[in-house]
Formats: sequence, structure tokens, C-alpha cells
Amino acid sequence: MANEEILGVTVLNSWKLAISRFGKTLSELSDEQLQQQVAPGRNRVFYLLGHLTATHDRMFPLLGIGERLHPELDDAYITNADKLIADPLSAAELRRAWAEVNDKLTRAFEGFTLEDWLQKHTAVSDEDFAKDPGRNRLAVVLSRTNHASYHLGQAALAK
Amino acid sequence: MANEEILGVTVLNSWKLAISRFGKTLSELSDEQLQQQVAPGRNRVFYLLGHLTATHDRMFPLLGIGERLHPELDDAYITNADKLIADPLSAAELRRAWAEVNDKLTRAFEGFTLEDWLQKHTAVSDEDFAKDPGRNRLAVVLSRTNHASYHLGQAALAK
Repeated sequence: MANEEILGVTVLNSWKLAISRFGKTLSELSDEQLQQQVAPGRNRVFYLLGHLTATHDRMFPLLGIGERLHPELDDAYITNADKLIADPLSAAELRRAWAEVNDKLTRAFEGFTLEDWLQKHTAVSDEDFAKDPGRNRLAVVLSRTNHASYHLGQAALAK
Repeated sequence: MANEEILGVTVLNSWKLAISRFGKTLSELSDEQLQQQVAPGRNRVFYLLGHLTATHDRMFPLLGIGERLHPELDDAYITNADKLIADPLSAAELRRAWAEVNDKLTRAFEGFTLEDWLQKHTAVSDEDFAKDPGRNRLAVVLSRTNHASYHLGQAALAK
């Protein structure tokens, strides 16, 4: 296997592991448990699930790999704090949206070459990217992977 | 900048960001606050700090880049659950150990070429590595970065 290919596999494994771990925790929580706060006065797991689904959905335009699937989630889970806006989807619908968004992202990442990973994301200008080529798609995906791990640490407290 | 170099910078940025974020949260917590549990009946932040320092310290032999600096932490923070073993270091000493271990790791990672990142770690046999070259140093560091983010999500609840 060439170095570039090994690299792609290693990065993809890290993303897949974070997603599957969050999915495992979700599968261990009932719809009622999703309404629990992760600690007194903190976000509900349901909010964290909506927040991660929306954040990952925003990667389609951010990475230039397609249209969003669930823009209806932003108001409740990105723009506003927990419980300010009614949940737009049921627990079953939100669980489905989570899987749908991540499956589609994963399929796109599986097709990435090293060149694809190192392309600029769409939120950086050509000029800024020329100065800092670290602002690439790989940086976005590593950041989102860590962001999912951050909230997984919190969601795990509800088990 | 060559692709290999961009790649190293991107991975290193992700590691540095996770470490600096944990450091920022630490700096916002007093020594007394480190004794708080992140949620009722859960780990103290102090334990999480010991756990991450020990886990990162174990990367020196795991990546084959040197001797451990703080093997005295394992009993209290790796082998046993929180509060079963007396804390071996004071808060000031543990904060210092955290910085010392991560600074030394970061300096080592800064010298890594793509070849260095893709070398096998020491917990995998030559035979298994030949079958799965994804079991490399990069995989370890991505995993530890996500592990730090996981516990940062919890430590942030104590603020």
C-alpha cells in the first residue's frame, strides 16, 4: 500500500471510530434518556445529537461535496442554546438524520485521494489558503472528529 | 509547501489545538475546582488530568521516541478508578507534569516526516503491521487527540 493510501485509511479510521462510538452510546440510550441533561443544568443529549448532526451536515457545503440534507436543524441546535427552540424532529427522525448525514459523508471521504484531503475548504479565500495551506479539508474533518469526541464524553455521562 | 509537509502541519495543528484547549480549561480552574466531579458521582477533573497525563506519557515507549517521564501516575489514574488510590502528586506538580509531557511529545512530533508518522507503533508485531499498516504512529496520535477531546468535554462541565 502506498503512503498516501495508508494515510487516507488512517484518517478515515479515526473519523469512523468517533462516529461509531457516538452511535453506540446513542443505541444504549432510550428516547426518554435522550431528554436527560448530561449534568445538572447542562445540555440534553438530544440537543448534543441535534448539534452534531447539524454541524456534520454543514460539512457538505464547507467541503464542497454536496448540498445539505438537514438545514432545518440549525435554528434549534446551532444558532440557539438548548431548549430555546422546540425540537424540529422526533427522536426517531433525529437518530435517522444522524446516520444519514454521517453515512453520506463517510462515503465521500472514502473516495478522497491525498490531493482531495489537502484541497482548501470553502470558508477560506484563495489568498488566505495560499498563506496557510493547513486550512484544508483534512483540518476540517480532524476538527469535527474531535468535536464529536468532546460531546461524546458528555453524552456518555447520561448512561 | 509539499503535500507531505502540509499533511504533517495539519495533523500537528489538531494535536496542538486539543492540548491547548485542555490547558486553557485547566487554567480557568483553581486547585480546589480540580477536586470537583464533572457530574454527580463521576470522575474528578483532577483524576481526568492525571489520566490524560499518564496516557500521554505512555506514548513515549508506544511510539518508540523515549523513556517515560511519569510512570508513578499509572497506579492512581490508569489501573484504578478515581479515589481508590491517593493522588501521588499535588495539583501544582500534576499541572507541571501535564505541560512537561505534552511539550516533549509535541517537540518530537514536530520532527516527524510522513515516513515517521506511518511507522508502526511498538504494541503491534511486524506480522500484524504487514497485514494492517493503519496501525501506525499517526493512528495512535489521532486516537489520543480524540481521547483528550472526550475528557475535555467532561472537564468543561466543572467550569
